[in-house]
Amino acid sequence: MSTGLYLFEKTTDLTHHLGKGMPIYPGDPSPSFENYSTIRKDGVNLTKIIMGSHTGTHLDAPRHFIQDGIGIDRIPPDKLIGEAYVADLSKKPIGSGITSKDLKPELEEKIVRDDIVVIYTGCSEHWGEASINRDYTYLTGDAADYLVSKSVRAVGIDFLSVEKFKAPEPVAHKILLANGIFIIESLSRALKQFVGERILMICMPIKLQDGDGAPSRVVAVPIRED
Amino acid sequence: MSTGLYLFEKTTDLTHHLGKGMPIYPGDPSPSFENYSTIRKDGVNLTKIIMGSHTGTHLDAPRHFIQDGIGIDRIPPDKLIGEAYVADLSKKPIGSGITSKDLKPELEEKIVRDDIVVIYTGCSEHWGEASINRDYTYLTGDAADYLVSKSVRAVGIDFLSVEKFKAPEPVAHKILLANGIFIIESLSRALKQFVGERILMICMPIKLQDGDGAPSRVVAVPIRED
Repeated sequence: MSTGLYLFEKTTDLTHHLGKGMPIYPGDPSPSFENYSTIRKDGVNLTKIIMGSHTGTHLDAPRHFIQDGIGIDRIPPDKLIGEAYVADLSKKPIGSGITSKDLKPELEEKIVRDDIVVIYTGCSEHWGEASINRDYTYLTGDAADYLVSKSVRAVGIDFLSVEKFKAPEPVAHKILLANGIFIIESLSRALKQFVGERILMICMPIKLQDGDGAPSRVVAVPIRED
Repeated sequence: MSTGLYLFEKTTDLTHHLGKGMPIYPGDPSPSFENYSTIRKDGVNLTKIIMGSHTGTHLDAPRHFIQDGIGIDRIPPDKLIGEAYVADLSKKPIGSGITSKDLKPELEEKIVRDDIVVIYTGCSEHWGEASINRDYTYLTGDAADYLVSKSVRAVGIDFLSVEKFKAPEPVAHKILLANGIFIIESLSRALKQFVGERILMICMPIKLQDGDGAPSRVVAVPIRED
């Protein structure tokens, strides 16, 4: 498989571990991963998982904020695999809002219709530091409008949410989701190595029936340069 | 992306829905997917998920049955994407054990080292019928030994387990997992369309820290025939 366009042998994980003490969006269900049976006692290891639909690296479906929006299980499987461009917005101070004016010079010559656009804010460097969970870099409504105008397929970000923390009106989510653009949140700091590059991105949510979102495995596959 | 070796635009889901009333392996944690908040009441849809690590379509890691085996998070990401051969064993009566003698004529000229081998038993046609949950087609230890001898990467099957129901000794699991061969269980009936064919298989478990297994999204990508 090393002769194709995509270098599957160099697949890189962009996903956070699901485990005890992991950061979550404040107010979300507390995750728990407990031994349900063990080899020592029962001959087999099994785990009971409790978590929210937006725990860890995850996708948001339109149904997250749109009453009649589709669920995570209804995103067509071929849309979960696609080329992405990773934009470096880490020059924006942590906690600030990214605007269309910030995005244009980074994206205008780089993206094409149906691309996945992934925003590296640098907040992922602080994953696990509680102070940032309420003060991370986010997208303004105006940035979301710009992404809609570019007909992107999906938008990814390397922290808990694309939205300003506890925004009275979740404008970025609503604008993207109402336009059928799914959202990938809490990508790991491994994203950094791909800034300014195109990758093949595989974004695989568990298939939660009518789910508003779902924990996902997300990986990057480098593209061969000719 | 339609010009490559793999036809991503024809990606087919092999994953069961996670939802109310779904079949589980008898004795596993009861899954539950409840509204944690709703747009109507709270302005946002969020779900609280409770499930086992082997609920729905999932992967088994060595740690499932091997005390010092690796967890699901330590399977290298590039091993989760690979070419698979789908073998038709549906001629075996439901509830019987598949032996090396059954596998050899189906696989001998078809597979190469590091392939994913996927067994279509036909049991997936009966997903949701309670009577079959304790009487499905399985792999014998001798079949597992044969697959080890062929140095396969992973073994998939279209029902709850590769193991005879409540086998006193889980030989198939132990032989495969002790040899670092991960297992893909509860693939959906969508598998049937690929019997006798090679596909690119993308098997993406959620990244459960030290997990014995994990619910997964699994898809098939057709390979272009030249």
